[in-house]
Amino acid sequence: MAEAKKLVEEITSMKEDFAQWYTDVVKKAELIDYASVKGCMVIKPAGYALWENIQKELDRKFKETGVENVYMPLFIPESLLQKEKDHVEGFAPEVAWVTHGGLEPLTERLCVRPTSETLFCDFYKDEVHSYRDLPKCYNQWCSVVRWEKTTRPFLRSREFLWQEGHTVHATAEDAQARTIQMLNVYADFCEQVLAIPVIKGRKTDKEKFAGAEATYTIEALMHDGQALQSGTSHNFGDGFAKAFGIQYTDKDNTMKYCHQTSWGMSTRIIGGIIMVHGDDSGLKLPPRIAPVQAVVIPIQQKKEGVMECAEGLADRLKAAGVRAKMDGSDKSPGFKFAEQEMRGIPVRIEIGPKDMEAGKCVVVRRDNGEKIDVALDALETEVPKILDQIQNNMFEMALKHREEHTYKATEYAEFCDTIENKPGFVKAMWCGDRACEDKIKDDTRATSRCMPFEQEQLSDKCICCGKPANKMVYWGRAY
Amino acid sequence: MAEAKKLVEEITSMKEDFAQWYTDVVKKAELIDYASVKGCMVIKPAGYALWENIQKELDRKFKETGVENVYMPLFIPESLLQKEKDHVEGFAPEVAWVTHGGLEPLTERLCVRPTSETLFCDFYKDEVHSYRDLPKCYNQWCSVVRWEKTTRPFLRSREFLWQEGHTVHATAEDAQARTIQMLNVYADFCEQVLAIPVIKGRKTDKEKFAGAEATYTIEALMHDGQALQSGTSHNFGDGFAKAFGIQYTDKDNTMKYCHQTSWGMSTRIIGGIIMVHGDDSGLKLPPRIAPVQAVVIPIQQKKEGVMECAEGLADRLKAAGVRAKMDGSDKSPGFKFAEQEMRGIPVRIEIGPKDMEAGKCVVVRRDNGEKIDVALDALETEVPKILDQIQNNMFEMALKHREEHTYKATEYAEFCDTIENKPGFVKAMWCGDRACEDKIKDDTRATSRCMPFEQEQLSDKCICCGKPANKMVYWGRAY
Repeated sequence: MAEAKKLVEEITSMKEDFAQWYTDVVKKAELIDYASVKGCMVIKPAGYALWENIQKELDRKFKETGVENVYMPLFIPESLLQKEKDHVEGFAPEVAWVTHGGLEPLTERLCVRPTSETLFCDFYKDEVHSYRDLPKCYNQWCSVVRWEKTTRPFLRSREFLWQEGHTVHATAEDAQARTIQMLNVYADFCEQVLAIPVIKGRKTDKEKFAGAEATYTIEALMHDGQALQSGTSHNFGDGFAKAFGIQYTDKDNTMKYCHQTSWGMSTRIIGGIIMVHGDDSGLKLPPRIAPVQAVVIPIQQKKEGVMECAEGLADRLKAAGVRAKMDGSDKSPGFKFAEQEMRGIPVRIEIGPKDMEAGKCVVVRRDNGEKIDVALDALETEVPKILDQIQNNMFEMALKHREEHTYKATEYAEFCDTIENKPGFVKAMWCGDRACEDKIKDDTRATSRCMPFEQEQLSDKCICCGKPANKMVYWGRAY
Repeated sequence: MAEAKKLVEEITSMKEDFAQWYTDVVKKAELIDYASVKGCMVIKPAGYALWENIQKELDRKFKETGVENVYMPLFIPESLLQKEKDHVEGFAPEVAWVTHGGLEPLTERLCVRPTSETLFCDFYKDEVHSYRDLPKCYNQWCSVVRWEKTTRPFLRSREFLWQEGHTVHATAEDAQARTIQMLNVYADFCEQVLAIPVIKGRKTDKEKFAGAEATYTIEALMHDGQALQSGTSHNFGDGFAKAFGIQYTDKDNTMKYCHQTSWGMSTRIIGGIIMVHGDDSGLKLPPRIAPVQAVVIPIQQKKEGVMECAEGLADRLKAAGVRAKMDGSDKSPGFKFAEQEMRGIPVRIEIGPKDMEAGKCVVVRRDNGEKIDVALDALETEVPKILDQIQNNMFEMALKHREEHTYKATEYAEFCDTIENKPGFVKAMWCGDRACEDKIKDDTRATSRCMPFEQEQLSDKCICCGKPANKMVYWGRAY
């Protein structure tokens, strides 16, 4: 077990240093590697396979709602980026600029897209003429670049992968309905597939997207009590349409401005999966998103028939629709166990000569360590059941953790003390004034995460200034 | 039929102006739109759906051979690009340079990847230590940028989508085997899925990839007799490994340099689909790649029961695994027919009151215009059969076209005359001398497309200089 121990010892414990634990897991589970370009990452096979599964699920859900995929250019001319005032102010300080093509300087600088609202608007202005052309619901899967100063794998990198949906509608109502529809797609995806419970709500004006009329968000709580904004959906009203001249002739033959939305989820959510579910043994993947759901590990694999039996079990699981593999390498079983735990594979299946004799195998759950004897003939029915139980348990555990780390405050001192000493969400009333948000951030490093759809009237006073308040806000320190 | 006629009239005929025909089809079939950045394109839903199907098929084939997907950064530091001498000479003149991040100038310029050999090498040098780590077979789906002066949708654009596979092996033999394996994956994909016959062969040194030891290619012939390089697979030998220091400890405990390959196919192939199969009515998609394989068009759709019947047929086809849709819009049937033809949908299914009475529908093949009465009960069996016939016929038509436009030459005057007056491939012997290739290009604008695996000894003299020659080369003008 010496080498197995070594694999695990190399991870810092969560309690000791959560940030270092995160970095260790990301590296030891072989999700990413650092690249020679500062702040950029190499997404390795285990990390990219996760992203592929996320893409597959989300893409299917998008298409069910009538979304079509497209691809817009990587570059945005500077003049185009500047068309919407708030938008350019939000993004210009953190974009990468292309100034030369080949050996020659460009006549106009191009920025590498930080997000593509301006490109979609430029496209829609020529594409939309009549109410018959509406709505258009397009999405693209691509990478975007934001020149961040401090970076962390998945959570904040200079380049990241995401999808960005951009829709254009005839009416404000249609745009609002689409905005909420996509927020719900994200929320359902997080809860049902990633086993991450989320708070749905609206961002304050301070925290909303540059150029949006309203930004909606799903917020998740990480194991260390910090929040992660996990997906956002923006209603632009007709602001971009006016800046770009996106108009249509309505049924009544009058010209009207369109209403637009955009919505995105990124590789950042992989950071969320790690920090919601992981433990001191490494990654812990929810079965529905795990690239490998079950690994069969032969015990005393050199004994006659063991390898063949293990291979047979993996084949039967695959035939039953389980993403299974067999590890027949010459590493020790102990090392393979540690590796399975590190990589977060939901179950391992141990099979050795004694098990074979007894007509069973041992299924070990990654979520709680439980060992379950499963009759070999019942493999195809039992393993999928166990995977479902793991999926449900992981959601329940994450929900319990969030509930245990969600606090209420009605007095400012209590609020500040909670933020400082009890990492988690703090629910508190807010008057709606930006100055209070700023002061709270200065005093506590906490930001307003969202005004949740499910409101409670905790008191009638703003937690900060004491003036009348009717908005309950989730506050917290965030990634 | 006035509006239907109009849709078709707007396409230039192939014979009149092939280049304009191409541009018309690309626009009218709504595959792309021009973007505000010169030389870049917006890939619209119909175009992107094609790319998604290409991705799905190729990705499956790659994974069957043990390839894993990863993601490398978009940017390459200038010093990294420069590590392999031939490679940088080939690419530096046509890359886009990022010089500023946010408001500050960068200390080192970054180029936007034109291809990612240097990034993969930089990664592999730290990833590969022992023979146990080999081979590594990674691929990424991404966009790349090459600052072309003249551009055309899909065929040559400043940014395009592709996949690039990069593998690293212990021995020269393993690298060569992988190079040929991937060339065969491309060839089979083109022939079996895209119905595009290809010539497999090796590039001459003049035409090989910058930094490769050998480049293999599949070459297809377009309808106008020009060639399209449709996919390439490169064997790098240990050249990059030496430049980047990618070494491993072999079983005999000695340090050895790795051998590498790379291989790519891009959105360029969509240009190939258009130019191999299209006609004066527009696009013609092979069923296996068509996003929509069958469109059901109701005739006299306001008559009772027609719409419901048409919808029912589409539903039954979908249930039978056919990618079908029903066009119940208020356009005239004639317009819908023209639209189906323009978009290249392999079959349309016409259903009206008279058909319903007769218990049949009319299936119209896009490839040859044939109209087939199909009994309504036989829909699920007949339509897939017809789609298979279309797929096969399209391949046969394309093969026949290529065979009819492939010539042999043994005298230089005949060679030049054929290139000039009979657009197509010309097979001719070559001595192996670069000077002859250069002269042929100067004289005829034709390039060596490949030295095919299937060689014929047409004569024993070089077509150009008359010196002894034992290599038969396919020559042609190319996109």
